Amino acid sequence: MATDNASAPESGYVQPEIDVRALAEVLDGGYAGIRDLVRTNLVTHSSVLDEADELGVDAFRERVREIVVAMAATGQTGMGFPAEYGGGGDVGASIAAFETLAFGDLSVLVKTGVQFGLFGGAILHLGTERHHDAHLPDLIAGRLMGCFAMTETGHGSNVQALGTVARYDAATREFVLTTPDEAARKDYIGNAARHAELAVVFAQLEVGGTSRGVHAFVVPVRVGGETAPGVRIEDDGRKMGLNGVDNGRIRFDGVRVPREALLNRFADVTPEGVYTSPIDNPDRRFFTMLGTLVQGRVSVGGAGVNVAKVALAIAVKYAVRRRQFAAAPGTEERLLLDYGLHQRRLLPLLARTYALHFAQDVVRAQLHEVFSGTEDDPRARRRLESRAAGTKALGTWHATRTVQECREACGGAGYLAVNRFAALKADSDVFTTFEGDNHVLLQLVAKGLLTDHASEFEDLDQLGVVRYVAGLAVETVMERTSAHKLLERVRDLLPGGDEWDREAGLLDPEYQLAMLRYREEHMLAGAARRLKHGIDRKQDPGAVFSQVQDHVIALARAHVERLVLEAFVEKVRALPEGGNKDALGLLCDLFALSTIEADRAWFMEHGRLTVQRSKAITREVNDLCRKVRPLAVDLVDAWRVPPEMLRAPDLVG
Amino acid sequence: MATDNASAPESGYVQPEIDVRALAEVLDGGYAGIRDLVRTNLVTHSSVLDEADELGVDAFRERVREIVVAMAATGQTGMGFPAEYGGGGDVGASIAAFETLAFGDLSVLVKTGVQFGLFGGAILHLGTERHHDAHLPDLIAGRLMGCFAMTETGHGSNVQALGTVARYDAATREFVLTTPDEAARKDYIGNAARHAELAVVFAQLEVGGTSRGVHAFVVPVRVGGETAPGVRIEDDGRKMGLNGVDNGRIRFDGVRVPREALLNRFADVTPEGVYTSPIDNPDRRFFTMLGTLVQGRVSVGGAGVNVAKVALAIAVKYAVRRRQFAAAPGTEERLLLDYGLHQRRLLPLLARTYALHFAQDVVRAQLHEVFSGTEDDPRARRRLESRAAGTKALGTWHATRTVQECREACGGAGYLAVNRFAALKADSDVFTTFEGDNHVLLQLVAKGLLTDHASEFEDLDQLGVVRYVAGLAVETVMERTSAHKLLERVRDLLPGGDEWDREAGLLDPEYQLAMLRYREEHMLAGAARRLKHGIDRKQDPGAVFSQVQDHVIALARAHVERLVLEAFVEKVRALPEGGNKDALGLLCDLFALSTIEADRAWFMEHGRLTVQRSKAITREVNDLCRKVRPLAVDLVDAWRVPPEMLRAPDLVG
Repeated sequence: MATDNASAPESGYVQPEIDVRALAEVLDGGYAGIRDLVRTNLVTHSSVLDEADELGVDAFRERVREIVVAMAATGQTGMGFPAEYGGGGDVGASIAAFETLAFGDLSVLVKTGVQFGLFGGAILHLGTERHHDAHLPDLIAGRLMGCFAMTETGHGSNVQALGTVARYDAATREFVLTTPDEAARKDYIGNAARHAELAVVFAQLEVGGTSRGVHAFVVPVRVGGETAPGVRIEDDGRKMGLNGVDNGRIRFDGVRVPREALLNRFADVTPEGVYTSPIDNPDRRFFTMLGTLVQGRVSVGGAGVNVAKVALAIAVKYAVRRRQFAAAPGTEERLLLDYGLHQRRLLPLLARTYALHFAQDVVRAQLHEVFSGTEDDPRARRRLESRAAGTKALGTWHATRTVQECREACGGAGYLAVNRFAALKADSDVFTTFEGDNHVLLQLVAKGLLTDHASEFEDLDQLGVVRYVAGLAVETVMERTSAHKLLERVRDLLPGGDEWDREAGLLDPEYQLAMLRYREEHMLAGAARRLKHGIDRKQDPGAVFSQVQDHVIALARAHVERLVLEAFVEKVRALPEGGNKDALGLLCDLFALSTIEADRAWFMEHGRLTVQRSKAITREVNDLCRKVRPLAVDLVDAWRVPPEMLRAPDLVG
Repeated sequence: MATDNASAPESGYVQPEIDVRALAEVLDGGYAGIRDLVRTNLVTHSSVLDEADELGVDAFRERVREIVVAMAATGQTGMGFPAEYGGGGDVGASIAAFETLAFGDLSVLVKTGVQFGLFGGAILHLGTERHHDAHLPDLIAGRLMGCFAMTETGHGSNVQALGTVARYDAATREFVLTTPDEAARKDYIGNAARHAELAVVFAQLEVGGTSRGVHAFVVPVRVGGETAPGVRIEDDGRKMGLNGVDNGRIRFDGVRVPREALLNRFADVTPEGVYTSPIDNPDRRFFTMLGTLVQGRVSVGGAGVNVAKVALAIAVKYAVRRRQFAAAPGTEERLLLDYGLHQRRLLPLLARTYALHFAQDVVRAQLHEVFSGTEDDPRARRRLESRAAGTKALGTWHATRTVQECREACGGAGYLAVNRFAALKADSDVFTTFEGDNHVLLQLVAKGLLTDHASEFEDLDQLGVVRYVAGLAVETVMERTSAHKLLERVRDLLPGGDEWDREAGLLDPEYQLAMLRYREEHMLAGAARRLKHGIDRKQDPGAVFSQVQDHVIALARAHVERLVLEAFVEKVRALPEGGNKDALGLLCDLFALSTIEADRAWFMEHGRLTVQRSKAITREVNDLCRKVRPLAVDLVDAWRVPPEMLRAPDLVG
């Protein structure tokens, strides 16, 4: 183990020592109590990891339901609901609980998300007192299971164009729900195939012949265990993973529900058939409704980060145990983690996992503030929605990538179902798709940046964005994004003014932040310029948007990475002096520099990295990997993934 | 569909039209007959794609065995064996058959590979007439099932260090096989858990108290369906995928086999207990034995490419069918493949799939020549082994990456088991590990380059490589790799001598090839210099190797990508003028430029790309994506994946 560490000691460098317990406290933050409750519950039900392999689909679905209900009884899953209905009244804690649950079986996680986040969240945020009184106590306790019927076969990303219709019949004071065609059937709906009694159904509301856009309705889909009349339910069948969740399809053949079934927080229909809403603009109304459901994205992003932790904990522990190949005849074979390449494969992912963890702390806190009303204004909501979209995309892609790399790093043993990766990989794969396709989410983030959140988030189509940007003089855009000002500021940040290329600055967080800020601002101005240029040439807005789309996505990614680095840097700065601060400092440098390294072509292309400095960054990343290597086991231990959840007997014993 | 294509027409550019049938003939090449037989067999047994979901593990294993035996009866799986034993006598055809089989269920593929490639191949290549006479007819017909017991729990990559022992007992003229400890149990062995009667067991041979290194023995592991005495077999249980293959563990407790059980092509033991071998050096002997099994790597690499084809065929067909989001209110939603980002996600992968297909043609032809004896000398063998290792690594990583991107590009529907991705992803995941871990394989490729194949391929440990390189003056290495000469040559290739940066050259294949050649040669010289530098500083060889490892792997990758581009360029040049040549020309440009783009930081760092030219390459890649977009469906149709194999009713109808 000491071979590499000893090979390149710098004068004056002292390897930090980690206080694992104290670091674990930093990571759990203000939610240690609820996280420990979840850890205890996970261990109590740890047999589910085996049962996922052993039971058939039907039995496994029942088992997962049982566990979800059992966990509900401990208070774990109801943290986000008001205390008067039996909830915990703590939105942040509900997210922390969900994140921690991602250490365990992911069917349990997703069923929990469907029941309490999507279904319960819709009742809570879109409904009013009558719905709360009628449903919250039962659903919080898990006595009433429900589903969230938004996605249709034909529309997953563009849900404003859903096909299901809810027509108001003033004569009977009922809504009539209809599935007009196959594309409009509800699809992939969790809890639909077996367990849901109620569905929150999103449908195009028609009142008096006028279409009012998408609204949500509470619709019984099962009565006494039987499918309700007029409802047709189909099982989506086996999936790549998450087979403890009963996803299904729902069609409505003229299903009638009373007027009170409309979740009427943002719009209502009088008995006589008059449509009313406090929000005039239909787009704005729709996205206001959607915006209340942002917790789903915050939850899934955090879950993705914790999935990555489980994979890394296994791979790192395996790599300090497994030996392969001796350097020379007669010598002992070397530990995998002493190979430079193995360090390169795992340790930047470890650093990024820490970075995303601290970024998740920020978005969770913003969610808590907005939904607890301590800071709830339109601007804060838009900021939250943008941030949630971005961290969800980066967190879930990180999970996919990390699970894959860790599986490969554990070789053939990683392929056996008994060792956790098979489940981790199959179950987490869809995280990049559900709660918003990641590319679509990054596009939303970019739209917000391009329009400076000038209008409601999400409510501009491609033409709208192109028009908006085209309507600004490029000078205005440039001024607003202030690329040249930023460059000045960046230079000011560095000691010696224009000494941008000083070698000494690589490990200066201000330098690292300046690099990511510059990239973001430059990309923003560039995307705006390109959009305007296309319009000036009278091109079709769709074509303009299509051609600029890769810039737009790159911009969003750059934005989110900047937010992530800021969160990490701030966290490290706030720590008391000592080994933990030093260790996290190394990790933060590794995250920052490996992020810059990954995009170093862009920085060179835009004059922000010389060739020499670019190479120096690569050397520094290698050096940081060697410094982090002896800390790796402590760093994964500090996540406190319960050992039972690692469940990889061939890999970690 | 025409939106984007119409948006940026170049003067003089004519969109090529593809003759799909003629292109399919180019792709099937000289093996159309056997490939069509496999396609027919796949369609005959297409129900296996459903059965993989529906049957339990035990029933599915039996079903897969049945299909393998049924396919054997058509002659499909015996192509690589001599005609006198009932085989087809055509090594190249046996690889082509295996590649094509990868369009279908991958348990069938892998069980075929285990039985006929690994087990049958070992009997054929390591055994002599007595083994051939005794076993080939039965195993070719599928009457005798066998397994290939090399990997152990403790040693997968470093198989020279296996723990199983075979001691010669001269008194009884038998070998005694023993598993000394848990790490030495055979593990992940396909066919072991249920079906194998015979095993080819790799064990450390001891004769008269002297260890002679790893040799292979034919050992009965089941007799009349019962586990043979002294043999203990354990089931590896469920895996992430490939659950139609019965992988297991085998231990030997003093199992006795007759002297004739030694596969004695390269070494023998006389009845009296005298060890003889035509190859003196034990390392060389071991790697000569391993080298005869190179067909496994060639097969798996080609299978990976065809797995990618299935995924891309589904994703491309879905993307010209699925619409989402309208550019402006009241207009039709746009097709996914008309989005610039979607083109960027799928079309470079499509281009790379074509490139790897043609590179596979080359390695398959080399294998055929070596094993048909038309060109079989040590140098040709080493060239083949290096190439097989490299294309296996790139082909299987390409499969993993492509399946993942295509699944995400098909959204939630891509996650349902009924739509092929679940199986493709789970089944192909281990391709990057078996038949040699990809990183280990690339290391072998690099070792060959660094030592100029000075000694037997694979037989230098880290110290050996470091010593070898250190033994050369750096000037010698530099001279041999001729970085400066290459640069001159590269410049000569471009019109106008030193006009390296001419915009016009981007689509010149000579320019593209020169870039990849320069990168490879420069990396080779750099890795050698770094190794020597470490030794000069008296560092531990293991540490030196560890620190240079990322350069070494990058070198190998650069080498293989250069080979792949050469294969593609040569293929395009050889085509007759017409639409197909033009279309493949676009695709070859897209592969070359997206490959350079992906590593453009390196090219800038090493003075081979200006900032302006780097940006121009990115623009050109985007432009090529737009030009390939209208050809995409024809390009995937030309692969002739049987429609039944797409099996994605929600995605491609």
